[in-house]
Amino acid sequence: MKIIIDGMGGDNAPSEIVKGCVDAVIEYDIDAIIVGKEQLIKQELSKYKYPSSRIQILNADDIITNDDDPAIAIRRKKNSSLVVGLNALKNGLGDGFISAGSTGALLAGGLFIVKRIPGIDRAALTSVYPTTKGMSLLVDAGANVDCKPEYLKQFAIMGSIYVENVLGKKNPRVGLVNIGTEEGKGNSLAKEAYNLLKNENINFIGNVEARDLPTGEADVIVADGFVGNVVLKLTEGMAISIFSILKESLLENTKSKFAAMLLKPQLSEIKKKMDYREYGGAPLLGTKLPIVKAHGSSDAYAIKNGIKQLVQFIKNDIIQTIEKNINEDLRNQEG
Amino acid sequence: MKIIIDGMGGDNAPSEIVKGCVDAVIEYDIDAIIVGKEQLIKQELSKYKYPSSRIQILNADDIITNDDDPAIAIRRKKNSSLVVGLNALKNGLGDGFISAGSTGALLAGGLFIVKRIPGIDRAALTSVYPTTKGMSLLVDAGANVDCKPEYLKQFAIMGSIYVENVLGKKNPRVGLVNIGTEEGKGNSLAKEAYNLLKNENINFIGNVEARDLPTGEADVIVADGFVGNVVLKLTEGMAISIFSILKESLLENTKSKFAAMLLKPQLSEIKKKMDYREYGGAPLLGTKLPIVKAHGSSDAYAIKNGIKQLVQFIKNDIIQTIEKNINEDLRNQEG
Repeated sequence: MKIIIDGMGGDNAPSEIVKGCVDAVIEYDIDAIIVGKEQLIKQELSKYKYPSSRIQILNADDIITNDDDPAIAIRRKKNSSLVVGLNALKNGLGDGFISAGSTGALLAGGLFIVKRIPGIDRAALTSVYPTTKGMSLLVDAGANVDCKPEYLKQFAIMGSIYVENVLGKKNPRVGLVNIGTEEGKGNSLAKEAYNLLKNENINFIGNVEARDLPTGEADVIVADGFVGNVVLKLTEGMAISIFSILKESLLENTKSKFAAMLLKPQLSEIKKKMDYREYGGAPLLGTKLPIVKAHGSSDAYAIKNGIKQLVQFIKNDIIQTIEKNINEDLRNQEG
Repeated sequence: MKIIIDGMGGDNAPSEIVKGCVDAVIEYDIDAIIVGKEQLIKQELSKYKYPSSRIQILNADDIITNDDDPAIAIRRKKNSSLVVGLNALKNGLGDGFISAGSTGALLAGGLFIVKRIPGIDRAALTSVYPTTKGMSLLVDAGANVDCKPEYLKQFAIMGSIYVENVLGKKNPRVGLVNIGTEEGKGNSLAKEAYNLLKNENINFIGNVEARDLPTGEADVIVADGFVGNVVLKLTEGMAISIFSILKESLLENTKSKFAAMLLKPQLSEIKKKMDYREYGGAPLLGTKLPIVKAHGSSDAYAIKNGIKQLVQFIKNDIIQTIEKNINEDLRNQEG
């Protein structure tokens, strides 16, 4: 297996990307192509000991940043690491692609260069969603802000397949984000999506209220990209602001500082639970070939874990399974 | 000034409602009508010393519960405390109404009995939204799940007037919940609402990402009822689950329990900050007469504070100000 990695994407590129890639090549026994400025990548690689035949460099002189308009950048910056990497994927130089760069550009590039699976109407961004019971997968996390019920159905099918096969949860519980648990609740999109989902061959548990997302009520959280993005960002915002209030309290005086010291093991345990780096990335779902988005602020550890997800994504034939399910679904609709 | 209160609504009715009402009558120097089962209310009132001429009882034998379908209950349960109370409001027996009962029924009753302000397309549920900088007001918190841009504009105008005059924030910052801060971001509803809001005579600060809601980026948080309800419930859910993780950690062993004891003042300070009881309720905006919804689990303290909001709502001529602003707005559109 050979993965392709965007060496120039993310806040800590290329140093942490290269280090994470070297670690992954050794730990997961894979080959890799790092795409980016050859001299810079070479220089980083020279810092490590690794089986040198397993890592190639593919030169790309340009970089797409978060300031670029995604769709324009994909068309104009032909020599960017992202575009060169996605073309390499499309041309079969590797089995999957991972980038910590611009989310919008990765999505646009995935759609324009790699293209959608036939029968899939929209590709979705996903996000690994931390809960008190472990990790859930949020689909769509922001790619499609105006959705038809059919899209949500496809998000549910793709998410269910990914969670079962990559995140290893048997028969994952698929929940539709809604403002009440009963059937018939919600806006017109949610109501119609509910009707489609209940007839699908997935473990649809019905509507899930936002209140129950943090406790892991659903393994696959289905929402349109607008609501999904609001859920994702509010979850982050609440975690940040509660912990900042807490931190302030712990630093208030000598007594509280002493208490904080006593609580160190518990606090680092909580921090670890919430750490995105443990998962390292989340897939784009709906493209013809495996693509994983790593967090923009990824360090080497996060990149290594992101590559692990990509490896599972490739190894478990997720895309073939999605194709099969979508085709069956289309046949059922016709029949 | 005379307020009307639903004596039978909420988890702790009638005892806590009556107690809160007695406290409010004394503290805010107002008169009150308590609506509900006369014998029960009388019995509760007999426990307290208060100027007896200031509290009347209006008998109502029936109760609308959360299990009732709101719209049906309003039509069929004519003798419920909610319907009797709203009719008393409509007929001028008092200046405003407060209930801790079914939110849906209060909204339906507000619309069917009290009716909307002319020019207002939809009445909104609001919620006082706790932030690290104090309280914001979320409009709409769940009444209107499918919205037109025009509704969101009206929510913004009404929310701005309420926050300025009742919550006492000068020139409140009005933010539109969106998935990016730049103009042009979001779904079609958010884009069109943005265009309307930027031309209004309010302090519109533009789009606000959900990540920035908990830090109080906006004083008036504008969203359609679906997104607003998701925001509200996710905020509650995150607070509950983070504090439950924290509590578990604090009870883990002797050392952590000792630390928890040392942190007691800080922890109760945080708890107080997040306590809905300090505000007690949030208004329905858009009805012809003042209506406040108190939290279902209100105790006497919350009820007293809810009545305080209702008193401010009445005293500050909010509804007249809304009427004036909406009429001006309509004239500007025509002109």
